[in-house]
Amino acid sequence: MILHLKETTDYDKAQSIAKEINAFLIKSSGRYALVTGSGMKNVPDQVESFVDEYWVFDNDIQLASRKYRSDKRTVAIGNTTIGGSTKNTILIGGPCSVESEEQIRESSNLLVSMGLTTLRGGCYKPRTSPYSFQGLGLEGLQLLAKMRDEFGLNVITEARDATHIHEVIEYSDVIQVGAKAMYDQGILRACAKTQKPVLIKRGFGTTLKEFVQAAEFVLSGGNENVILCERGLRTFETNTRFTLDLCGVAWLQEHTNLPIILDPSHAMGYSFGVPVLAKACVAMGIDGLLIEAHPNPAVAKSDAAQQLNHEEFKELLTALKPVAESVGFKMI
Amino acid sequence: MILHLKETTDYDKAQSIAKEINAFLIKSSGRYALVTGSGMKNVPDQVESFVDEYWVFDNDIQLASRKYRSDKRTVAIGNTTIGGSTKNTILIGGPCSVESEEQIRESSNLLVSMGLTTLRGGCYKPRTSPYSFQGLGLEGLQLLAKMRDEFGLNVITEARDATHIHEVIEYSDVIQVGAKAMYDQGILRACAKTQKPVLIKRGFGTTLKEFVQAAEFVLSGGNENVILCERGLRTFETNTRFTLDLCGVAWLQEHTNLPIILDPSHAMGYSFGVPVLAKACVAMGIDGLLIEAHPNPAVAKSDAAQQLNHEEFKELLTALKPVAESVGFKMI
Amino acid sequence: MILHLKETTDYDKAQSIAKEINAFLIKSSGRYALVTGSGMKNVPDQVESFVDEYWVFDNDIQLASRKYRSDKRTVAIGNTTIGGSTKNTILIGGPCSVESEEQIRESSNLLVSMGLTTLRGGCYKPRTSPYSFQGLGLEGLQLLAKMRDEFGLNVITEARDATHIHEVIEYSDVIQVGAKAMYDQGILRACAKTQKPVLIKRGFGTTLKEFVQAAEFVLSGGNENVILCERGLRTFETNTRFTLDLCGVAWLQEHTNLPIILDPSHAMGYSFGVPVLAKACVAMGIDGLLIEAHPNPAVAKSDAAQQLNHEEFKELLTALKPVAESVGFKMI
Amino acid sequence: MILHLKETTDYDKAQSIAKEINAFLIKSSGRYALVTGSGMKNVPDQVESFVDEYWVFDNDIQLASRKYRSDKRTVAIGNTTIGGSTKNTILIGGPCSVESEEQIRESSNLLVSMGLTTLRGGCYKPRTSPYSFQGLGLEGLQLLAKMRDEFGLNVITEARDATHIHEVIEYSDVIQVGAKAMYDQGILRACAKTQKPVLIKRGFGTTLKEFVQAAEFVLSGGNENVILCERGLRTFETNTRFTLDLCGVAWLQEHTNLPIILDPSHAMGYSFGVPVLAKACVAMGIDGLLIEAHPNPAVAKSDAAQQLNHEEFKELLTALKPVAESVGFKMI
Repeated sequence: MILHLKETTDYDKAQSIAKEINAFLIKSSGRYALVTGSGMKNVPDQVESFVDEYWVFDNDIQLASRKYRSDKRTVAIGNTTIGGSTKNTILIGGPCSVESEEQIRESSNLLVSMGLTTLRGGCYKPRTSPYSFQGLGLEGLQLLAKMRDEFGLNVITEARDATHIHEVIEYSDVIQVGAKAMYDQGILRACAKTQKPVLIKRGFGTTLKEFVQAAEFVLSGGNENVILCERGLRTFETNTRFTLDLCGVAWLQEHTNLPIILDPSHAMGYSFGVPVLAKACVAMGIDGLLIEAHPNPAVAKSDAAQQLNHEEFKELLTALKPVAESVGFKMI
Repeated sequence: MILHLKETTDYDKAQSIAKEINAFLIKSSGRYALVTGSGMKNVPDQVESFVDEYWVFDNDIQLASRKYRSDKRTVAIGNTTIGGSTKNTILIGGPCSVESEEQIRESSNLLVSMGLTTLRGGCYKPRTSPYSFQGLGLEGLQLLAKMRDEFGLNVITEARDATHIHEVIEYSDVIQVGAKAMYDQGILRACAKTQKPVLIKRGFGTTLKEFVQAAEFVLSGGNENVILCERGLRTFETNTRFTLDLCGVAWLQEHTNLPIILDPSHAMGYSFGVPVLAKACVAMGIDGLLIEAHPNPAVAKSDAAQQLNHEEFKELLTALKPVAESVGFKMI
Repeated sequence: MILHLKETTDYDKAQSIAKEINAFLIKSSGRYALVTGSGMKNVPDQVESFVDEYWVFDNDIQLASRKYRSDKRTVAIGNTTIGGSTKNTILIGGPCSVESEEQIRESSNLLVSMGLTTLRGGCYKPRTSPYSFQGLGLEGLQLLAKMRDEFGLNVITEARDATHIHEVIEYSDVIQVGAKAMYDQGILRACAKTQKPVLIKRGFGTTLKEFVQAAEFVLSGGNENVILCERGLRTFETNTRFTLDLCGVAWLQEHTNLPIILDPSHAMGYSFGVPVLAKACVAMGIDGLLIEAHPNPAVAKSDAAQQLNHEEFKELLTALKPVAESVGFKMI
Repeated sequence: MILHLKETTDYDKAQSIAKEINAFLIKSSGRYALVTGSGMKNVPDQVESFVDEYWVFDNDIQLASRKYRSDKRTVAIGNTTIGGSTKNTILIGGPCSVESEEQIRESSNLLVSMGLTTLRGGCYKPRTSPYSFQGLGLEGLQLLAKMRDEFGLNVITEARDATHIHEVIEYSDVIQVGAKAMYDQGILRACAKTQKPVLIKRGFGTTLKEFVQAAEFVLSGGNENVILCERGLRTFETNTRFTLDLCGVAWLQEHTNLPIILDPSHAMGYSFGVPVLAKACVAMGIDGLLIEAHPNPAVAKSDAAQQLNHEEFKELLTALKPVAESVGFKMI
């Protein structure tokens, strides 16, 4: 249940009610709001006189639900805004991993030359083998920050686990919660305490309900700037790396109020399919795309097969523009 | 291995070689061709002097492979053609099941009024319960034939099993092999003996390789008019009926030479997601869409939740036209 | 709904009622019974005076449900009986495919020497590629029949599609409906018209509900001798061929009244895991095991990797006997 | 590649070589060993004179592989030992969550009365909704420690994320890495620095290879006491909570040298199936079982449906003993 308290209710009162009914206390639409589990169906007696409006839910998708907010939320990434009624589809590009200053500067140059604003690059790679390249860590974060300073780009990078989430929050403009880390409450709860945008990737074995509930961890903790990112399910089909769940995206668009960014690179796993999948994504009227591009994919230290080269990345944007326009959106 | 025989080779000779090396004998590109398992890597001695050209393969995707034919095949559905370099995306509509003459006439009127050419409607429904509506059977086929005669429409309908495949072949313009029947060799071998187009739906538990190998049954039996249809995998996600595998479609476009039609209605299972998914499909530059539409979905005898009403179906075509154009295709 | 008619009701009356309420008419427990869809919750007025007892269901698992019959059904395979309170676990062995008279005679000799009664062997192989060995067909059926005559064995073999189901019914003692054919109503309806036991394998993409509903096709058509066979689901895990669903088996044991035979050979796909999986199966108190064994697996024309050799098959039985005893069962 | 250094090699030398070839340095079988990625196929020149023995691998399953150690490792849990040639199957029981001192004392009493040694109980619950009961946290850990002191039990509990892994390591005898946390390198790397046993649960969307590679994180970091725990995959089947992958267990037994404990409670999700599944598990000759049991499952704060009551738990052990014996094992 979500309860909007009357505007006259002050913080101390709001907090004492929250404690009494074991609810999360947040600010929403400029006033205090309480959020309890969806098992609560009636306004508790002791709260009744303070409540302005309330919403009852069938399940624990509450703050993210269209039943609560029928319009899509906006999220600002630096100076650009997605979601809401902006009809913007942001193209975020960059390499799988930050590998060197030279490499990430090439990527930055590419984005700027194309008029794009946001750079991706992994520093803490969630590799499944201890014997693989694990990312540059803090050194990578510092390189990303340098690019931001030099090029005026926004940067997005991933936290692998809770031990370095504070560094990631400090150095990035958008915090990425990766597919393997999206149940990590150490990460989610830290993301709830900042106001920076948080992009949560759906786990490859994660249901839509669990996915949106991960967003509820951040929303109920007080950060409204949450973006959902679908990047493919693990299915029996192994000719592609994962199976991008666009049925699920249609469901999310209908039932949730959060902006959606799609990642066809990880879903496909092979560069040949990325452009055509990206077109499919954009035609759905989504809020953004996350695409891996590397100055020289053949020598990439991770995900070599799925990264576009810079020429392909430029052609991609050219190809996507008319698709976005055909559904009333604009590539930014 | 595929071996093109020299043009001078006559039928009797071709047939005797085929028998000797245990190969399928077909006509391809106007000459005799032999097809053996992909285990054969060298041209057998006794055949060598008759062979013009040959192709070796890693696996049993052979006739359907881009390695054999680098261009996409064309398939004619009545007077319209898809595939090849036509850049046509055909919109096939109609109800899940043929329920009555009145109902199917309404559907036919709708299609004709929209300038569409091809009507779908199930007569032998592959229901999983014996206690559900099983379709009108032969009576349904006759109604479809009547609509063809009255309206000049092409009709597509499904064979549930081999006991009625010959009726389906007789009455329909495109034979649909359903997702649950696509391993049925009784059906596939019968489809190989006709020249009518065959649309094979991918089973919801079927790998891409098995899917294309089902097409190989028809192609190697002598019918070149095969269309592939992706309609969703069965995954752990149950908020949507199935998971449409567009990564798989990207793979099929890259590796096979067959036209591809997509069925977002069955994948989604709910009408709210069908239009947005249909846009995603069309943006991939596919050869067609199969959409369920019913004059009154609420009373449909099967798949009520996923069928569009006629107003929604008309809006769909309007919305799809610019998307098709944005990728250089045309809705027909 | 299942309705038992009063014993005084004669066939003509029963049939006319069945027609009136659109129900299946069968004999069950020595009297006429009507079966309608589970949507029917109340006894129709015109039937009321003829009804002795009736059962209402939540879904279309009706005749197979423990709610209808709380005890497990028995099925006779030749002179041996499984299910009910027999506490028998039958071990059915033999090659994947019948390949030659010599091979299948070796298999028969092995079974007889071990005191086993039932021989498996495929004649119509549901291969996914047209270029693979497709089985000996009718010639294979005749070889199986010869073994039955010579050795007194019962034989079980599979129908691939409806075009040869009548031959399979004629030549076999147990009709196997394979995983890829279990939605095939041409096969299921033919099996309903015989009284021979029918073993239905669960499709690798098939839910438990759909699986049991396939049994309902046979049961509602008048054949009570149905056995369920779990043989593995297709999942994302590819180090084994399939994933044997023993959670599903526990569910079937709790909710259905049908005997259950398990097939660890196909699930595992590699002979190394078959014995240990077979022990797991037997410890569940199941009614039988289907194990592939070949005189010389290395040269088998299909499924070479997963077939045990004859020495391993003999050791398997020795190892399984104490496991069966530990749960109060007996290997037969 | 794993390289055993000559016994004469001292620590400083070993470490300098490790640095030079970018390898993990551990003690194994009483001597220094280096572990590099499996991409390394030849002993580097500069190391050659120090190497005693080495192993080359196809993939990054190295320290856990039977190719490296053909015998199964032993792990001590308090005074009891599993794995190796002990033929012990340990039964670990207790509630899903530690809820109160009274509840966990009842559980402890039960275990002691049955002669069991190891108590499970969650303190940091990895719930997917922020609005559910999240566990007692540190208070729960302290209750577990109290039970250890009072009853002489070993306790096993789960780390949800890296923010509290050090408390979990401090308070527990066996550290459980849960299914949702098993990619968490913050947890895995911390577990590598202790010598306490670590039980790693397989994620429900995790391949066997990734699962064993999680163990490699701990093994290559210097902790040899790793136990694998299979607890079910997420598949399309929803009548049971997950699908226990016993084919995968057979694969692990064949290919890895680590003890294996199975968790049928989470796989099944319903108490009715737990005993019969537990028998299946034990018949495979596994090293342990993790079973949820609660004094009063109906009021449990998490996983109410799948917990056995204490009577059922006692009957379970009685039923499992003969099954274990039938395969040469002993329940402890």
